[in-house]
Formats: sequence, C-alpha cells, structure tokens
Amino acid sequence: MPDLFATYYFHPRADTTPREAAEALAEEQTTGTWTDITTRTESVRRLDGVVESLEPLGTGHLARFRFPAELFEPGNIAQYLSVVAGNLFGLGRLDSVRLVDIEVPPALAEPFYGPKFGMEGVRRLLGTTDRPHIGTIIKPKVGLSPSETAKVAYEAAIGGVDLIKDDETLTDQAFCPLAERVAAVMSRLDEARSDTGRTVLFAVNISTRADRILDRAEVALENGANMLMIDVLTSGFAAIEVLAGDPSINVPLHIHRTMHGALTRNPDHGIAMRPIARLVRLAGGDQLHTGTASGKMGHVPVDEIRGDNEALRGPWHGIRTVFPVSSGGLHPGKVAAELGALGTDMVLQAGGGIHGHPGGTAAGARAMRQAADAFIEGVSAEEYARDHPELAQALLKWGSSPARS
Amino acid sequence: MPDLFATYYFHPRADTTPREAAEALAEEQTTGTWTDITTRTESVRRLDGVVESLEPLGTGHLARFRFPAELFEPGNIAQYLSVVAGNLFGLGRLDSVRLVDIEVPPALAEPFYGPKFGMEGVRRLLGTTDRPHIGTIIKPKVGLSPSETAKVAYEAAIGGVDLIKDDETLTDQAFCPLAERVAAVMSRLDEARSDTGRTVLFAVNISTRADRILDRAEVALENGANMLMIDVLTSGFAAIEVLAGDPSINVPLHIHRTMHGALTRNPDHGIAMRPIARLVRLAGGDQLHTGTASGKMGHVPVDEIRGDNEALRGPWHGIRTVFPVSSGGLHPGKVAAELGALGTDMVLQAGGGIHGHPGGTAAGARAMRQAADAFIEGVSAEEYARDHPELAQALLKWGSSPARS
Repeated sequence: MPDLFATYYFHPRADTTPREAAEALAEEQTTGTWTDITTRTESVRRLDGVVESLEPLGTGHLARFRFPAELFEPGNIAQYLSVVAGNLFGLGRLDSVRLVDIEVPPALAEPFYGPKFGMEGVRRLLGTTDRPHIGTIIKPKVGLSPSETAKVAYEAAIGGVDLIKDDETLTDQAFCPLAERVAAVMSRLDEARSDTGRTVLFAVNISTRADRILDRAEVALENGANMLMIDVLTSGFAAIEVLAGDPSINVPLHIHRTMHGALTRNPDHGIAMRPIARLVRLAGGDQLHTGTASGKMGHVPVDEIRGDNEALRGPWHGIRTVFPVSSGGLHPGKVAAELGALGTDMVLQAGGGIHGHPGGTAAGARAMRQAADAFIEGVSAEEYARDHPELAQALLKWGSSPARS
Repeated sequence: MPDLFATYYFHPRADTTPREAAEALAEEQTTGTWTDITTRTESVRRLDGVVESLEPLGTGHLARFRFPAELFEPGNIAQYLSVVAGNLFGLGRLDSVRLVDIEVPPALAEPFYGPKFGMEGVRRLLGTTDRPHIGTIIKPKVGLSPSETAKVAYEAAIGGVDLIKDDETLTDQAFCPLAERVAAVMSRLDEARSDTGRTVLFAVNISTRADRILDRAEVALENGANMLMIDVLTSGFAAIEVLAGDPSINVPLHIHRTMHGALTRNPDHGIAMRPIARLVRLAGGDQLHTGTASGKMGHVPVDEIRGDNEALRGPWHGIRTVFPVSSGGLHPGKVAAELGALGTDMVLQAGGGIHGHPGGTAAGARAMRQAADAFIEGVSAEEYARDHPELAQALLKWGSSPARS
C-alpha cells in the first residue's frame, strides 16, 4: 500500500545536525520517544517514519519523510494532522519547522467525498467558460441591517459581480440575523437577475460548530441561499465534510481561511497553505481562498501561490477541482497583475476595491469586470479605460500595481 | 453590556507607527477596510474596535483592544475567533502579531456548559485531595495490539499512576481498533483495582470529526471507558462542546493540544496558549495540557505557564476549573522542578520517563509517585531515593533537572 509523504523545511538547534533533527522528527511523529524503551520491538518499528531525502535550502534544510499508510486512520483528518502536523512543532532539537506539503496516497484520499461542484460545476451554474469570476465582500463588514446588506448586494450584482460573500466575522448576530439577511439578499439578487439576466452567487457565512452546521445550512437554503461559506480553520474541516457528505446540500461551498496567517505567515515555522489546500479539497470545498499576487496580505512568493492553486485545479485522485479565490486589497488596477501571475481560472475578490469606487458599488463592480475584460482582450487597463469610465475612475483613485515576484 | 477585550503583542512594519499598526488591526477586525467607503456610517461605527492601551514591550508593543460585545454571536467559538484571531495575522502593516490573551464578558461565556467535572470532580473520582496526579502515555505510541496496550496499562496502574492516555496519533487504526483497545485496557485496569484498590483513568483518544465524536464516545463508553481524550486543535472546539453538552457523557474529558506549537511557539507571532486555554474551559474540557517547567518542549517562560494554569484553575464566570496537565520529556528527576514551579494541582505525565525506567513500566510509575511523595514531604528526591530503589534507579539513569526561569 503506498505511503503518505510529508515535506518540512526546518532549522536544527545549534547543537544538532540536520540529520539528527530529521530523525528526531520522524521518531516523535511515529514510534519513538526521547529515551530508550524496550517495548519498541521490530513489529512496532514497521510503523517508523523514514527520512527519504534531506537537503540544504536557504538558511535551513528541506526534508521529505515517508509515513507508513498503516499509521493513519483512513478518513480521519484530525488523525492525519496528528501525524504530519502534531507535536513536531514543539521539538527542542528544531529551532523552527514548517510543514510545506503532503502527498496523500489513494487509500487515504478514497474515504472523502471531495467537492460536489468544483471549479467546473461553479462555472456551469453561472454559464462562464474561462474568464475569471469577480467577487465582492459586503462592506462595511459588519453593522449593516439585512435590507442594507441586500441593497449593497443588489448594486454589486447589477454592476456585474459573479459572487457576493459575507465577511468572516458576520454569522448570525442580532444586528443582522442570518435568515433575514439571506432572504433579503436573495430577493434583491432575483431582482438583479430580472434586470440583467445574470445569476449571482451569495456565499452565506454559516461558520459555526460542525455538529450544528447542517442546521444552519438548512436555514440558509430555506431562505434561498445558492452558496454556503465556511471558515475552515475556525470551524474545522468537519464543517465542510458534513455538508459535502449530505445529499440535501445542493449548492457549492465557498471556503474561507481566516486565522491562517497565524500558521502560514512565518516562512520558517508553522504550516504552509499547500497541505491545508489539499485537505480542503479532500473535505469537499468548491472554492478556497489562497493568496494574491499583489494584494494587501501578500507575504507568500507568487510561485508558491501558483503551486497552491495548481494543487486545487490539477488532476488528483479523480477528485473534482477547487476554484481558487484571490482576495485582500484587490482593486481594478491590480487585476492584470493577478491574472497575469495566476491565470484566469480564478475568482478575484474585491471589497474596498469595489465599494470604495468613487461612483459607488455598482460602478466599482463594473470597473472590476472591465479590468478583467481588458486582460482577456489583451489590452492594458489604461488603454481600456479610455472608453470605460468606471475603470478610468478606479485607476485614477488607486493606480495600477504590478505583481510581486 | 460589557465588551470583549483582547491583548496582542506586535511589531509594526518599519514604515508604520505602533499607533497606526494598532488602528489598522482594530479596523480590519471590525468595520474597516483598506480604503475609504462611504457606507461606514455612524451607526456602523458603534461596532468599531478601540485601542484601549498601547505600550512598548521588549522589541515590540503590547496593545489591549476593546471589541464591542454586539460584534459577537454568543456561543459561536468559530465566530469569536474570526474577530480576535482572524485576518489580523496577515496584515501588511504588522511584521508580526501574537494574540496574548482574551477577556470574555459574562454574556459571551454564558452560552457554554464548561467542564462537567473540573479539577475537583476528577479528584473526587480518584479520592485525592491535593497531591499531583501522575499520568502516563502508552509507549511505544503506536504499533501495540490491544492486549499489548492493556499489558502496559496494567503495569503502569499497579505501579501507581492515576491516569493513562493514548498517544495523540492513536485513534482507531486497524492495528489497534478502539473498541478492542478500550475493552482490553479497562479489563486489565479492573484487575489492577482488585490488586491495589485504586481506580485508574484511561483517556481514550476519540479524536475525529465533531459530528462523529458522540458515536465514537459511545463506543468507548460501551467498552468501559472512564475518560475520553480529544485533540482540540485538530478535531476542533466543537468536538469538546458536543460531549460537554450531552448528558449521556458522564466521564471527564482529557484535552490534548497537538499542533499547538505551530501557533504558540514563535513568541512574536501566532496565538499564545492563554486564549486557547480559556476557550477549552468554556467548551468543557476537564483536563488540558499546558506546559512543562523543565520538559523537552519548553520554549515558554515558566511565568507564562503559571498564568495559563491559573486561567484554568482560578474563579471565572462560575465555570468549573480545568485540571492542568504537564507533559513532554518528564521523568522522576524533574518532578520537584515541575511541582516547585507550577504547584501540586497538576497532572504530571511521563511517557518515556516511566516506560524507559530500567526496571520497566511498573517500576517507572513507582519512581514517579515516589518523586511526587518526596516533594510533598519536603524531602529532596536524592534523599528520598535512599530507601526508594525505583526512584534511585531513575535518578541514576536520568539525573535531576531544575526548572527554567
């Protein structure tokens, strides 16, 4: 049976060789402990982790480990994490260590449902083929009533967005109850569809305890929701798995990753986005936030984001794809940089970059769409802006930004 | 209504003042975005986060924020985290930021059950008053069959431990199925009780998806389990909440924290143990791993661990206490350091430090108990070892260690 492989980047403690540090990690995560014990017999040691490769990289070392498949309980993400992302982060022989990637063998991917829709399924709902989708977050993030929220959503919809999402901090507070919000927004999106002929998705933030997520999803669906949003790191992978495994949930899942910077931001320590992305794909997310090539929360090399998106979109165990979402500080002047760096199989999401447009939300949405259209037509945003006034206004306010390298 | 307060330690980006960085954090987590938007009206701004205090500390700055209670959905931990531990970790105006503590007002603590047993309840089950409990992890962590596991458990029990736990990577794998393991271990622990008159707890690792945790708990209980173990960061807080809220679960919950080093280890960035400890107490854990004053995974100042344990044991909203667990590289030569630094209202857990004893597991357990007895009698381990041969053997093998300062 093929095993699971995991790759780590680490810095050994000053008194420890890279090999000793790697062996300590392999032992801690499998059969070993810090002192000799007589019960670690040959039969036990079949479960040992093995350092498959070890090489210097930058100021540290990159190592790939083989963890025997038998070590894992198929289908239990909490247990998978206990091996590949467990106690190792505290090991004294390492000054720092970052889980860079995991390679999940078929037997450990097989128990999962994966996405119901995937990128292709979401495109089918909206009738798009290869252009990027444009999304927006309702702003201000919190404080609007359901009808105020719905008004902003309507304007974004008639301006041309494909997707509207709740802020991650907005769930079911008294100032904007979930059921009322969904009903109000969906009613206005129906109106926008009458006006424009276009369907717009509303990703309702149902983030809560995994054992209650189905109830909350049902409230959202009863009120007309056509997409559900879950924050995976705060709600847990289980929240996605419950919905992906339930046949009554017939809308795509938009997966947000708030709190990820606590894990992903330090390039030397923690957990990279790649393994999180793979687990979200197994669990069944249809869309997932990865990174921006030019946005406000950009600390990750563009090549790494490209690889994360490929992990979502590439062939993998016959599991459907996940639509990558780029979000955070985007505006029309950054669209060309994003699409140039990351391709057009993307959702580009702008909050302030739409609602902060001098002409308001609808004009902001138009400007984002115009920027994307310009890119697809192979024309610069500046040139396209000559006969697209909303784009011109946006570029005047925010300028253009290149991608990071 | 009293608000929620959160304290962060941060380093601003070079071109940003501490005040600007703190304001950016308050805005991002509440009503603001990176650009001006006209819809951020006065009525919205009642939900603004406020920088209550800001002072230099070490190379960085410590700031305490007030987040209006109305921002939060009572009882939704995922939503609480989205505000206090959400996007802020990726903010460009901060080079790094660590969530140090949270102060949860009564209205936001009230929806939670808290522990069913707490420290006092667990002590009552075992009939102890103020001595530390001694625990062990079965070693080797994985690879033993149910009957081999039970044999190790029996030896630890007759040697004098109070608690035996599964390793975090052992859940319900084919080489040691959970139901068989629990049945085998509990049968041998019954035998040990006949031999010694003492009850020993077995924390069965039921970590899995929160929506399946109750089923797994029931399997464990049907097979005689008298304690359940959950890894909170990999399974999610919901896994604890489900069990704490279900009247059929009448055994204490032992909460492990594997993966925490990815969040907690960097003193400048991520999430400290304190807020995690408070949320585990709300969710209903009866025991929780915090830190060791002298162990193998010690990167946290002893004062901070003392504070974490106090957050578990001190009076708080009328919620029961949590029994702190110290674990990782402990052995009899470290017991005095641990108890001296952290007090005797503790569970001291040793894996290798018991099973690696030259006389085997039972002798190792005796040596740990002897070291604890010595401390309580105010005698040094070395002196006590004169007429306690198991302790003498342990000290000869591993020596004695002081606590860190």
